[in-house]
Amino acid sequence: MKLRLIIIVLFTFAALSAQSDDEKMIKTIFDTSLLNGKSYDWLDHLSNQIGGRLSGSYNAERAVQYTKEELEALGLDRIWLQPVMVPKWVRGNPEYAYIENAPGESTTVPICALGGSIATPPGGVKAELVEVKSFEELDALGREKIEGKIVFFNRPMQTELISTFRAYGGCVNQRYSGAEKAGKYGAVGVIVRSMNLRLDDLPHTGAMSYGDLPDSQKIPAAAISTNGAELLSTMLRLQKDVKFFFSQSCKNLGEVQSYNVIGEIKGSQYPNEIMVVGGHLDSWDLGDGAHDDGAGVVQSMDVLRLLKVSGYKPKRTIRVVLFMNEENGLRGGRKYAEVAKQKGEEHVFALESDAGGFTPRGFSFDCSDKNFAKVQSWKPLFKPYLIHFFEKGGSGADIGPLKTDNNVLCGLRPDSQRYFDHHHAANDTFDAVNKRELELGAATMTSLVYLFDKYGIDKAKRLKD
Amino acid sequence: MKLRLIIIVLFTFAALSAQSDDEKMIKTIFDTSLLNGKSYDWLDHLSNQIGGRLSGSYNAERAVQYTKEELEALGLDRIWLQPVMVPKWVRGNPEYAYIENAPGESTTVPICALGGSIATPPGGVKAELVEVKSFEELDALGREKIEGKIVFFNRPMQTELISTFRAYGGCVNQRYSGAEKAGKYGAVGVIVRSMNLRLDDLPHTGAMSYGDLPDSQKIPAAAISTNGAELLSTMLRLQKDVKFFFSQSCKNLGEVQSYNVIGEIKGSQYPNEIMVVGGHLDSWDLGDGAHDDGAGVVQSMDVLRLLKVSGYKPKRTIRVVLFMNEENGLRGGRKYAEVAKQKGEEHVFALESDAGGFTPRGFSFDCSDKNFAKVQSWKPLFKPYLIHFFEKGGSGADIGPLKTDNNVLCGLRPDSQRYFDHHHAANDTFDAVNKRELELGAATMTSLVYLFDKYGIDKAKRLKD
Repeated sequence: MKLRLIIIVLFTFAALSAQSDDEKMIKTIFDTSLLNGKSYDWLDHLSNQIGGRLSGSYNAERAVQYTKEELEALGLDRIWLQPVMVPKWVRGNPEYAYIENAPGESTTVPICALGGSIATPPGGVKAELVEVKSFEELDALGREKIEGKIVFFNRPMQTELISTFRAYGGCVNQRYSGAEKAGKYGAVGVIVRSMNLRLDDLPHTGAMSYGDLPDSQKIPAAAISTNGAELLSTMLRLQKDVKFFFSQSCKNLGEVQSYNVIGEIKGSQYPNEIMVVGGHLDSWDLGDGAHDDGAGVVQSMDVLRLLKVSGYKPKRTIRVVLFMNEENGLRGGRKYAEVAKQKGEEHVFALESDAGGFTPRGFSFDCSDKNFAKVQSWKPLFKPYLIHFFEKGGSGADIGPLKTDNNVLCGLRPDSQRYFDHHHAANDTFDAVNKRELELGAATMTSLVYLFDKYGIDKAKRLKD
Repeated sequence: MKLRLIIIVLFTFAALSAQSDDEKMIKTIFDTSLLNGKSYDWLDHLSNQIGGRLSGSYNAERAVQYTKEELEALGLDRIWLQPVMVPKWVRGNPEYAYIENAPGESTTVPICALGGSIATPPGGVKAELVEVKSFEELDALGREKIEGKIVFFNRPMQTELISTFRAYGGCVNQRYSGAEKAGKYGAVGVIVRSMNLRLDDLPHTGAMSYGDLPDSQKIPAAAISTNGAELLSTMLRLQKDVKFFFSQSCKNLGEVQSYNVIGEIKGSQYPNEIMVVGGHLDSWDLGDGAHDDGAGVVQSMDVLRLLKVSGYKPKRTIRVVLFMNEENGLRGGRKYAEVAKQKGEEHVFALESDAGGFTPRGFSFDCSDKNFAKVQSWKPLFKPYLIHFFEKGGSGADIGPLKTDNNVLCGLRPDSQRYFDHHHAANDTFDAVNKRELELGAATMTSLVYLFDKYGIDKAKRLKD
């Protein structure tokens, strides 16, 4: 009985002192990020000295060179560029659109071409409109009512959802597949309400696809600002034969060479167990891509730096991956996973930051129950930093292809309320990112990487999801 | 045994179904606030049509009239103005300051008078500087080193604190009492580093006091922007006899009549148990007071409206109080408590929102352990809305005087990272408030008021704090 008591006391003491080491390390990480972080300076350069970084663009290549040089300056064990072919799409001249309620009586509205869209004919396209809120509505109308018209997809994001990402998920098919669906019925163009919860004058671009539509059925697609969508809808209620004109000269230029940027600290005990942290280096072209995903890029870079500066020697290999082409192809994420598979690398953990540089709230996880239980046991360590959200759910688009039957994938989950005010629009700019919020995110990510490096993952296969 | 089982089952069932009613009601509250809230429209008017609302100003009186009319339109049971005398301080002409490193060689820096400060002599004041970081440093220097000089208080907010309010608390004595302390040693003026975690060009005003200093020892006090403070400190390191000039024409104009604005819904079962929800109607004059505390005002107004619109009939009397003069006197808060005491009113609960209109994270409480345990049991109800912070701690300045030995006082705790970027500065403006974040705050407050109204407070005396 006495011995058992002693063992319990010793065990408790060991647990407490381990806890206390973790508390100290995490405090060091947060202090260092807030007092001496690099993420904000890096983001300043990426946003203001480079700017929007569309895949295949000159800016994207500059971003590759810049981040590679900055990683080199950190004294990591290895830095390299991983070649990947990416689609090159260019916006061309600024888009132009108006609503015409009678010849010569028109109102200009702000639009932008969707990424991947074809151009309008050189003189633009003008036609009557059909407003729909869903593909079901479109199907019900059929070719007869749609042929020769512009289809206006106007389903708004659901305001009452607390997660704005869920609201986005409920709408984005209009943008991604609207032209494919409408093209099949002989429409001559597609206008999509911007994925934005706020009423304002900024059109929000984003990826679209024609699926397997033949070239003859491909039609130009553009986003209209939320205020523009409201106006258009009101005018259509008042006058059914209102016409819409738009002109855009965007182009798909095939594939060009680009790169993922990769750096790593070699693990001291388990160098073959790889832990990835990353964001995507490409962005849309309307803003400077500060939130999407400059923030994730610089936070991921700072994870490795914060571990180094804090004097921590990782047991496992910690790798930062700056993925190319998340926005319109996911080629970087796929290539990285493909090469990892070829080389037989074991990726035990991957963390992605691609939800904006806002105040971090926690993470969502794609992992086994046992690993999730491990995460839950760490919650008290995060409490002083107001990090409270630890839920099962998605991780991130770029790391998705790394999924195995036992590894841990996760995504940083910042406060999402302001994200879609900026997402893919001209106001996704450096000034919309708060320094402290960005740095708190980097520290939150670093703390999780530290814990998973120190304690490892449980390698039992997960049950079927 | 069987009977006991049945009782347990029934009890569990009752608990579950009660829970479910609460879940539904809280969902209704959040949906209504996000889909059909009034707070953002009210804030737009208060900020853009009225503007800064210094106690005793014409704008403050317009805000009294406007909010009274808006409350009247809600069909509450009773609305009234509660007279309160407030100090009237005016800023006068725009302030002006420069650093002079040689006659004719000077650099302009942005300053603003602190609220309550006296003016400089008409031609301004110019003197050498003494930079200190604390009152201890000031005391150590003593009269010999301070007399005839301008004291420059330059202790920055502590960057590594997660709660920016704690960082503010660690600095604000320089602003509040700096002139009193320096005046005693014969200084001719005081310049205080703005309470701002960000480096920028905006000076942040705020209340100061001369304590019981005789008029002859009172000296003018101003805040300098954080960039200005950094520059000044650098120049002082390079050249000890640098001079500082500043000129301000602010004035204390004695006391004038003003009002707290009050509206209530009479309780159906316990009308004599009063629950207060409030914010402060006055603001500083440099911005339009959108975050501090227009947000708290409109959220508090919407609490009563959201309860009404949701079809809930309060058991207790729910009262919205828009306090006057929180910023430079707290006269409204004190008057309200004084009148409540005179009338023998029982205030069982009070909730204040005065920490900005940012994403709500939870509440801090000043209450007994039993009431706090009650709050803890409600946490799951708030989880779907990402409301997770329920801690003991302060409540709010205006409701503080209502404290009894058994009531529940609490304060809304929004995300604090951006708050001091705007606090008391020219950029505390409507555009810095996000509609959804504001509305989520109103819904969070309404949900807590609903729960305390429905379940009441535990009336046992609290143990000594």
